[in-house]
Amino acid sequence: MGIADMVTEKAVKAKEASRALLKADADLRNAALREMAQDLRARRARIIRANEIDMENGQQKQLSSAMLDRLRLDEKRINDMAVALEEIADFPDPLAAVLEEWERPNGLRIRKVPVPLGVVGIIYESRPNVTVDSTGLCLKAGNAVLLRGGSEAINSNVALAEILADACHDVGLPRSCVEIVTTTDRQAVIEMCKLDRYLSLIVPRGGAELIRTVKQNATVPVLQHERGMTQIYVDATCDLDMAVSLVHNAKVQRPGVCNAVENLYVHEANTAALQAIVADLQASGVEIRGDERVCALCAGCTPATAEDWDTEYLDLILTVGLVNSLDEALDRIARHTSGLTEAIITDNEANAERFLKEVDSACVYHNTSTRFTDGGQFGMGAEIGISTDKLHARGPVGVRELTSYKYVIHGNGQVRS
Amino acid sequence: MGIADMVTEKAVKAKEASRALLKADADLRNAALREMAQDLRARRARIIRANEIDMENGQQKQLSSAMLDRLRLDEKRINDMAVALEEIADFPDPLAAVLEEWERPNGLRIRKVPVPLGVVGIIYESRPNVTVDSTGLCLKAGNAVLLRGGSEAINSNVALAEILADACHDVGLPRSCVEIVTTTDRQAVIEMCKLDRYLSLIVPRGGAELIRTVKQNATVPVLQHERGMTQIYVDATCDLDMAVSLVHNAKVQRPGVCNAVENLYVHEANTAALQAIVADLQASGVEIRGDERVCALCAGCTPATAEDWDTEYLDLILTVGLVNSLDEALDRIARHTSGLTEAIITDNEANAERFLKEVDSACVYHNTSTRFTDGGQFGMGAEIGISTDKLHARGPVGVRELTSYKYVIHGNGQVRS
Repeated sequence: MGIADMVTEKAVKAKEASRALLKADADLRNAALREMAQDLRARRARIIRANEIDMENGQQKQLSSAMLDRLRLDEKRINDMAVALEEIADFPDPLAAVLEEWERPNGLRIRKVPVPLGVVGIIYESRPNVTVDSTGLCLKAGNAVLLRGGSEAINSNVALAEILADACHDVGLPRSCVEIVTTTDRQAVIEMCKLDRYLSLIVPRGGAELIRTVKQNATVPVLQHERGMTQIYVDATCDLDMAVSLVHNAKVQRPGVCNAVENLYVHEANTAALQAIVADLQASGVEIRGDERVCALCAGCTPATAEDWDTEYLDLILTVGLVNSLDEALDRIARHTSGLTEAIITDNEANAERFLKEVDSACVYHNTSTRFTDGGQFGMGAEIGISTDKLHARGPVGVRELTSYKYVIHGNGQVRS
Repeated sequence: MGIADMVTEKAVKAKEASRALLKADADLRNAALREMAQDLRARRARIIRANEIDMENGQQKQLSSAMLDRLRLDEKRINDMAVALEEIADFPDPLAAVLEEWERPNGLRIRKVPVPLGVVGIIYESRPNVTVDSTGLCLKAGNAVLLRGGSEAINSNVALAEILADACHDVGLPRSCVEIVTTTDRQAVIEMCKLDRYLSLIVPRGGAELIRTVKQNATVPVLQHERGMTQIYVDATCDLDMAVSLVHNAKVQRPGVCNAVENLYVHEANTAALQAIVADLQASGVEIRGDERVCALCAGCTPATAEDWDTEYLDLILTVGLVNSLDEALDRIARHTSGLTEAIITDNEANAERFLKEVDSACVYHNTSTRFTDGGQFGMGAEIGISTDKLHARGPVGVRELTSYKYVIHGNGQVRS
């Protein structure tokens, strides 16, 4: 069988299983999640055996020690995956609430209710825990999954997916609620992206190249996160200590993530804040790339190039510039934004409101670190990803964003005239 | 300038205008809509002059009289467009409500609020009124538009778009809230579909070929309506007169639309309903394509082929089959559905509930004609289209579905630890 046929066959089975999930109430879906957790713990020997093969292959392929560490599964990590499933089981049911309900003058009663998406395709790279937590989040929302993990973790992923599928079977759901592509041929990714007849959504979880490949080939809608050009504006007046603390947290606490700040704009009337922030960051080893005025005001800065303003460093580097007004800050933020996270630090309420309204990003903050752009920090529970698109889901994507809706209409013989 | 550059330049201008729309409150957006209505009436001579050129060209190109009629603009039709804009101005503001609001244990206050999508691309065919009503719906939701109409109506569309853009300018909004592609080269459609840097959404309004072209080329998300394979199931027991009346309305009242029924399934225990429905439809000139048992039970039926069950006739033809159970009906509906509209006619509440839950379509009806799948009929106001996708918008797409959301977070110095 060719790769296209193999992938399609699995998608067809998952689609068929998704029909059974339409009938499954929250108790059954949660029972499946708890059964999965229990079985992961009970069958850990099987998982570790499969993982050892991946580790050996990885060593032969001379993967970096960081890659090998991400790949490794041990009892603790298996238990962590099980705990994650149990936490998802404890979330509120995303399919429970009626979203809206109204009656028409002709007596039709219309209810808008949440429903599963159907089958969600997950295309991901090395970490095998993605197999488990993606499946858990999708199943919580009544979706079947078609998984396609990276080649390094293929044995671990297949073992995990089998256990998850068996757990579905044990509680009375079809095994095909969890399907996994077992070939490591990259063509399988391309084929998956075109299965819009069976898949409602594809979530790529991995690096920029993976996301690009998926997006360029997909006829299935893709939930994507392009990059995180997080920006902060420090206004003319603000609490100085707070400004230092917020920018410090946004840059230093974890520089390698999409909500870490990359560009900083400071109002020219607030050179005190500029100098305090720069000195604090430099003391933490942050390289400052400043515009001409910043370099003149602060010692030890490198001149910023035009490209610096569009670079997501994901490192201890920050581009810093002075602006002469809130309007200039808004213009420059609009020019460089990735549409994910921006913040203003100010004690001027009117300026804060303008900023929060006019900055066109998923998450806009006033007097807060940008590092809170995260489903867990928002209290949404675990997230399956972050979206920089504006359709369907924007910002953190949790269980609720893995649903669609339908209109249920009750009548008593109404016809249209 | 090449076509790609021309189209891109317009998209850039519209994107810039969409920033001004972020600041525009509902009063200003509604004022623009009312100004547009007024100016359409006041400048009708300009519109009619442009339309006459299109009509002459159409006659030379020997367009059908139906096409020419759709193309024609007169005082009444211009006034209808103006009235439509005034009605949109009277809708509630889709950007007014706070969608959700909560506080985190660390004191962060998170508000989820509706925001415009940005720039919406509309790609449409002959009717020039689409220029006006699409622009009206988009602007109501705070979006700029990039329009691309069919070549037959190019002069009318450009005249209309100019008047709409001028009206924006007159109330203090940028003219570029309304941009129109003035070349009739088909390459412009392809170029528009790839402008994901500037456009948030493309809405194709036209035939299947247009939608296919857009979907195959788009990197911008597309709101699509593939087809309407509307299906009805008549259960073992039901009100016989109601069944006849509902199927009649669903097939005969307007057969050429996506919510007109194409496949009918009748429970084998309800041959009385089958015969009454078939006789009624035949009396209205409907051709019945039946399975073997239907043909045996009802005179004058044609045997249905396998393809008939997947054919959207949009005509006075109906495919009819007997089923031996609700389960069989559900299976067959799942096999042939387009995911838009399905109905059950029954007096059995439990069967109705199963059907409404398990049929995976945008609009599912109990004891109602399928013809109500329509934004106006739902009380949503005018719709820009119908979506058979599950992401973002499903079913009728009105003004509210032309919005996205963002998270606005207020803090007082919170950092992440």
